[in-house]
Amino acid sequence: MEDKELFEEKLVEIEALIDSEKIVDLNEYIEEMHPADIAEMMVELPEEKMHKVFQVISWELAAKVLDELDSDMFSKILSLLTSEHKKKLLELMSLDNMVDILAELSEEKRLELINLLDAEDAEDIRELLVYDEDTAGGIMTTEFVSLRKDITIYNAIEHLREHAPDAETIYYVYVVDKNNRLSGVISLRELIVARPNALVEDIMSESIIYVNINDDQEEVARVVKKYDLLAIPVTDTNGRLRGIITFDDIMDVLEEEATEDIYKFAGTMEAEAELYEEDKISIRIFSSVKARLPWLIVTLFGGIMSATILSRYEDTLNSYAAVAFFMPLLTGMGGNVGTQSSTLTVRGLATGNVDAGKSLRTIFQEMSVGVCVGTICSLLVCAVAFFWMNNIRLGIVVGISMAANMITAATIGTVVPILFKKWGIDPAVASAPFISTALDITGITIYFTLTTLILLQA
Amino acid sequence: MEDKELFEEKLVEIEALIDSEKIVDLNEYIEEMHPADIAEMMVELPEEKMHKVFQVISWELAAKVLDELDSDMFSKILSLLTSEHKKKLLELMSLDNMVDILAELSEEKRLELINLLDAEDAEDIRELLVYDEDTAGGIMTTEFVSLRKDITIYNAIEHLREHAPDAETIYYVYVVDKNNRLSGVISLRELIVARPNALVEDIMSESIIYVNINDDQEEVARVVKKYDLLAIPVTDTNGRLRGIITFDDIMDVLEEEATEDIYKFAGTMEAEAELYEEDKISIRIFSSVKARLPWLIVTLFGGIMSATILSRYEDTLNSYAAVAFFMPLLTGMGGNVGTQSSTLTVRGLATGNVDAGKSLRTIFQEMSVGVCVGTICSLLVCAVAFFWMNNIRLGIVVGISMAANMITAATIGTVVPILFKKWGIDPAVASAPFISTALDITGITIYFTLTTLILLQA
Repeated sequence: MEDKELFEEKLVEIEALIDSEKIVDLNEYIEEMHPADIAEMMVELPEEKMHKVFQVISWELAAKVLDELDSDMFSKILSLLTSEHKKKLLELMSLDNMVDILAELSEEKRLELINLLDAEDAEDIRELLVYDEDTAGGIMTTEFVSLRKDITIYNAIEHLREHAPDAETIYYVYVVDKNNRLSGVISLRELIVARPNALVEDIMSESIIYVNINDDQEEVARVVKKYDLLAIPVTDTNGRLRGIITFDDIMDVLEEEATEDIYKFAGTMEAEAELYEEDKISIRIFSSVKARLPWLIVTLFGGIMSATILSRYEDTLNSYAAVAFFMPLLTGMGGNVGTQSSTLTVRGLATGNVDAGKSLRTIFQEMSVGVCVGTICSLLVCAVAFFWMNNIRLGIVVGISMAANMITAATIGTVVPILFKKWGIDPAVASAPFISTALDITGITIYFTLTTLILLQA
Repeated sequence: MEDKELFEEKLVEIEALIDSEKIVDLNEYIEEMHPADIAEMMVELPEEKMHKVFQVISWELAAKVLDELDSDMFSKILSLLTSEHKKKLLELMSLDNMVDILAELSEEKRLELINLLDAEDAEDIRELLVYDEDTAGGIMTTEFVSLRKDITIYNAIEHLREHAPDAETIYYVYVVDKNNRLSGVISLRELIVARPNALVEDIMSESIIYVNINDDQEEVARVVKKYDLLAIPVTDTNGRLRGIITFDDIMDVLEEEATEDIYKFAGTMEAEAELYEEDKISIRIFSSVKARLPWLIVTLFGGIMSATILSRYEDTLNSYAAVAFFMPLLTGMGGNVGTQSSTLTVRGLATGNVDAGKSLRTIFQEMSVGVCVGTICSLLVCAVAFFWMNNIRLGIVVGISMAANMITAATIGTVVPILFKKWGIDPAVASAPFISTALDITGITIYFTLTTLILLQA
């Protein structure tokens, strides 16, 4: 809340400075701010004020602000600037952010901007645009410093000093041979504490952790997180160093992948997350409908299957309607237990807490949990059914169904994601529809079988 | 899969080296490995082999391996070592990892280990143990380098060289005044490119992004992620620098918080995640039951409410049992749509994609999505009901109920998390039970009201 107030205050102050045309004060005020905060302000400002801000701040800061914007805001601001101004800002932007933004623009706009770049940057951008945005190639940058291994530490530091302004990080420096093949890594920390006349190859580490340019970003994040890396080098299939990925991009990937898993689990696709930023509400609604409908249709047919099973028990329902009262309760509770077990299993498989190799242990554990919660809920609901309907047989049927249902739900909720994982299907995306459909069907079957056996045979 | 095979191969190799007592080869082999990989191996080795590994590797590497272990493995390995060996390894471990592990040990074991430390470290550890493990104080380390502002860059770099071995990071260096109050920050990158005879205060940045020692770790992660920081300083209420938090801990927090949200949403508490590592299966089952039962009991009573509502329509059910066939379908689909809307809203609120301030827009969007998917599913199910039961009135009732149900579900699924957020209740933890219960009740009420109005009045 405090942050929000501070933000509003700053926004008012900036607008006031623009209105009163106090250019020097405005410049001083904004230059003190962090680019991420300026970017946040931009979204709230009307166009002419945005333009004003970009006119008064330094090119370096302006480029950093562009780094923080999404593609819509980026296009909006660039359209206000002259070609010369655009060219200068694009040159100063970080390549990986520019690629992310360019990838979301129309072909025409993209080409217009690439044509403003100098030949070398344009080539890098074109190369980076080729890679799928969910791969190492798609999130890497080509702005890094590499060293030859036969130079001294003193020269290496001089080299770093010179190339630092253009590099995404200088804290890890990669060592390459004459064919640009990755052959070592050295941290700035190690450079600083080494003797200046030692050679790079004497202190560099040769056991390098790296990823391939085609690796999935989720795999890259797993490696970076496991080894606590500030940056990771990206090589092609010939072992040549092609780029690096820094920890800040990995933090974004971690959040993105968690969101993706959560959305998939609820039966919708990740594209929705990105669309939240966009403006046209009709596009967002259409995209949401398209993302959610498939799972809904699958479960709709599951529901129709439940209905056909129920229709086989029409006589039971006709002769004793009270049986229907407990149906939503039983299927609902089965669904809840199934959701708990499957959520834990799917997330556990994603974070590595559940090992597909030790699946029997996980299944046993979840079944045991199902037995415990099933027994407790079963006793409660048995008592309610008995005292309410004054029918001990109904109480027993509902109670046993509840326990059987919850144990089945815990088992199916655990087994299905583990099986999907083994079969190479993403456990997050496919588990929910199968589990929810399967549980409705098993729940109804158990309940009406017991009803026929215990309640109506009396 | 490739990784897994490589891991198994290495494990076999290490076991063979231990069995054949090739100490020198074993040492060389393991010293080449990354501590995170060695820690993973440890879990698979029998005790006497673990012990052997710890006897042959250097103390520095052994301490780094301990940094990577969970509290169980940590205790197991320490119990194999002599006091002298333990003392040495603890001194070399990183303080924030040691605190995390010590916090999970029994009081007795914790004191035993703290007594092995030198006075200064013991004091730091005792101080760090005071903070809640979910706060900035709980995840920070006191191993950082700080500088006085009146020294030269040359001296600052010398100071860094000297203190680098004990510091968690030297890439950000914090500048303090004589009362240890945080007054600036400077990156190693800036130090490297600055003139050696300039003063620290001339190049340091005074707009410092920091967190308070009592801030929640989720808030800390949000700030670090927003500003792409490698590390963030932690101050107390008097502005004194108390510790730093590095990006690697933030990556853990991001994953932990996403897992926590996911578990809460499924109606279970986060403690389960940590217990996955532990050994005693009975403890884990008990803890799972304790974590999941509250939500199950809440929804159980919601289900009983559904049952009492249904009982008011006993005559309807008795006279036309086919009405009951479509009940699981209708409540199930309502639940699915509600889950989709509430998942998107809850996750959106957590990542900032949904702004509680612009809630009307989000609600409007979700309702529109509900109208679209509701209409499509409604037509489908109306057709099925009509052709199957050969009853157009039933088809119309089921169809309208389906649409009404899904629109209500989308609305409730969006409004409830937004309201909870406004009222200061965690949207993740409380939304699911309320939404699922509310939807069963509204779904049944809509369906049977329409049945009474359209189907039975005919």
